[in-house]
Amino acid sequence: MALVVQKYGGTSVADAERIKNVAVRIAQARDKDYQVVVVVSAMGDTTDELVKLACQVSPQSDRRELDVLLSTGETVSSTLLAMVLHEMGYQAISLSGAQAGIRTDALYSRARILKVESKRVVEELERGNIVIVAGFQGITEEMDVTTLGRGGSDTTAVALAANLGAEVCQIYTDVDGVYTADPRLIPEARQLAEMSYEEMLELASYGAKVMHPRAVELGELYNVPILVASSFTRNPGTLIHREVSMEVRNKVRSIAHNLDVAKITVIGIPDHPGIAAAIFQPLAKAGISVDTIVQNASIKNITDLTFTVTKGDLAKAMEVIKPIAASIGAKECISDSKLGEVSIIGTGMQNTPGFAARMFAALSEKGINIQLITTSEIRITCIIDKDSVKDAVRTLHQAFKLEVTES
Amino acid sequence: MALVVQKYGGTSVADAERIKNVAVRIAQARDKDYQVVVVVSAMGDTTDELVKLACQVSPQSDRRELDVLLSTGETVSSTLLAMVLHEMGYQAISLSGAQAGIRTDALYSRARILKVESKRVVEELERGNIVIVAGFQGITEEMDVTTLGRGGSDTTAVALAANLGAEVCQIYTDVDGVYTADPRLIPEARQLAEMSYEEMLELASYGAKVMHPRAVELGELYNVPILVASSFTRNPGTLIHREVSMEVRNKVRSIAHNLDVAKITVIGIPDHPGIAAAIFQPLAKAGISVDTIVQNASIKNITDLTFTVTKGDLAKAMEVIKPIAASIGAKECISDSKLGEVSIIGTGMQNTPGFAARMFAALSEKGINIQLITTSEIRITCIIDKDSVKDAVRTLHQAFKLEVTES
Repeated sequence: MALVVQKYGGTSVADAERIKNVAVRIAQARDKDYQVVVVVSAMGDTTDELVKLACQVSPQSDRRELDVLLSTGETVSSTLLAMVLHEMGYQAISLSGAQAGIRTDALYSRARILKVESKRVVEELERGNIVIVAGFQGITEEMDVTTLGRGGSDTTAVALAANLGAEVCQIYTDVDGVYTADPRLIPEARQLAEMSYEEMLELASYGAKVMHPRAVELGELYNVPILVASSFTRNPGTLIHREVSMEVRNKVRSIAHNLDVAKITVIGIPDHPGIAAAIFQPLAKAGISVDTIVQNASIKNITDLTFTVTKGDLAKAMEVIKPIAASIGAKECISDSKLGEVSIIGTGMQNTPGFAARMFAALSEKGINIQLITTSEIRITCIIDKDSVKDAVRTLHQAFKLEVTES
Repeated sequence: MALVVQKYGGTSVADAERIKNVAVRIAQARDKDYQVVVVVSAMGDTTDELVKLACQVSPQSDRRELDVLLSTGETVSSTLLAMVLHEMGYQAISLSGAQAGIRTDALYSRARILKVESKRVVEELERGNIVIVAGFQGITEEMDVTTLGRGGSDTTAVALAANLGAEVCQIYTDVDGVYTADPRLIPEARQLAEMSYEEMLELASYGAKVMHPRAVELGELYNVPILVASSFTRNPGTLIHREVSMEVRNKVRSIAHNLDVAKITVIGIPDHPGIAAAIFQPLAKAGISVDTIVQNASIKNITDLTFTVTKGDLAKAMEVIKPIAASIGAKECISDSKLGEVSIIGTGMQNTPGFAARMFAALSEKGINIQLITTSEIRITCIIDKDSVKDAVRTLHQAFKLEVTES
């Protein structure tokens, strides 16, 4: 019997009515004779409310305790969904992350899955049960509850799908799938029927909120086809898999954008080995994630170094970087918090020259100034003024003819 | 190092402020160099709210799923309490019922504890941690979560105290301890410094809400001293233990009352073996708990049978009993829902005649009519008109001089 894993996000199970709608979808898959494993997030704002509760009693909550607390959110939604399925006459059972065998390391609040021991899940499937697994949570070797951090429930779903050899991992959310650009910005943006893992990874990393890169990465590693679709509509969604049709390869597939970019430039650094480490190790220790890094060619052994962080991290990053800049003899440290980034993404760019030139020309024609450029094999990202981002997305969407249907 | 188990009820941990107060008490025990194990109930009305949520999606909630759902209430309060203790600079860790080794049978919603495997608790105590255990929950052999039903958290606490060899199990609640009568009814009622297990069992079974009989029974079985005290005051509370001081033995210790009594009488039953079984087996199957049963001496092979149930069960009990009464040739079935009961309790009554006579005389002097009488070795209960209960409690409190200080 074929098996599917379905994952429903917090918006999809926000109240009793929505949980019932989700149950109908699950029942339909079961009626088609699929074995069904469902992964659920916590209802609506539950997680935020639990964090608030923790802050009330302890502003710097212990991470182990916070993880146990937060894990109750997914436990609640998993039991309610099982109850609804019973009510509809279906056999179903809820399992905690621990019961589903999601074994993790002990890095509380951002635990990584070490392995899946799905014995219990398989047993319950063989008994004819729809298995509802509480997402976002796992258990350490010492049997302590952990949570997986951002993108946790998606990751639970893909990990289970990989372990169980599911035909597909369906990620149900509040959007219809992946678009050529954010449809709230570009009304003519088209939904994509399929994407490669690499494309989705770049998209997720460079601004698209549809799925967390971590779960996409896991899907790629174990070759799990991932369908991203809406739990509110019947739209077929976007399939993320390895073999994207040949016809659509040689193209830009989608434009990602991100409005949360701040830039720090350390000016006049005496250039010698170890400078980059001296700057970035303290930032990493302070828990600040650095995105783009650009170092100019050094002139007379003096160089400038620019990097980007999220706006939320800017103040803290400046605090860390200023004394270091002084200690290494840099001239000064400046920052700019009003930046955004726009990226064109497509595996078709890999062996085809000219995409970068077309991108820069299109932006330049509109008078949009490019501050920093970074690239991967299948992505080109320009960091520009935040106020120009919307215009840039629209310009690039037209320049690469993304409104035109593929094939 | 001596060890105490403390249990805090839902009212004691109803909000952040109260959780902080509770933490102060726990810290004081720790400061006195005790090893401390704490058992907590769910915050305030959490359990009721979770039941409501379940009813919204499934009126006849699956019991396994409901247990998992309800267990989250205690998990939440246990983590919050641990966080507060960390905030105060104390080492503390929360454990689920499963982690604390509360192994139960699989009777969901009213599971019985089979054994306690306290390895993890002991390890955490040895690491210097205050161990906060989520009450009311356990785990089956198949690692499924159960809840223990009424009196569950008290039972968790006493079971842990027994297993760990605690010096005392302190049950903190919203009353100061055990009184000679309900102080809301009898302002001059005195708090008792100590009680025997048997007395507390009878009191709990015959109306006093302070503690569930189940936890008292367990305490008696394993000889765990139980202190019942308020989490809101510094009142020393009431100690329930085996060796009650000799001076106070030869007395009535307390008056219990209960306003929730209904009576059913089956009249004119042809008396032959098997009649009682024919009546009470169907009631038990219908889940109706029968309290007092009185059968009159049979005259000419015809007898009457009277029994009491809670008012909530009366309608259902009549439904069950009427066809049975007809089938066994009884004359008729009558009921009365306006009853109450008053009990005098004291181990001193055991070998001392005259208590029953004094009780009946006192009630008769006040013109209170006794409808049914039942007794145990240390208790005499009279079932009377509900409206006379308050008067009866006051009368007996005076008749047995309970307002006079012991010793």
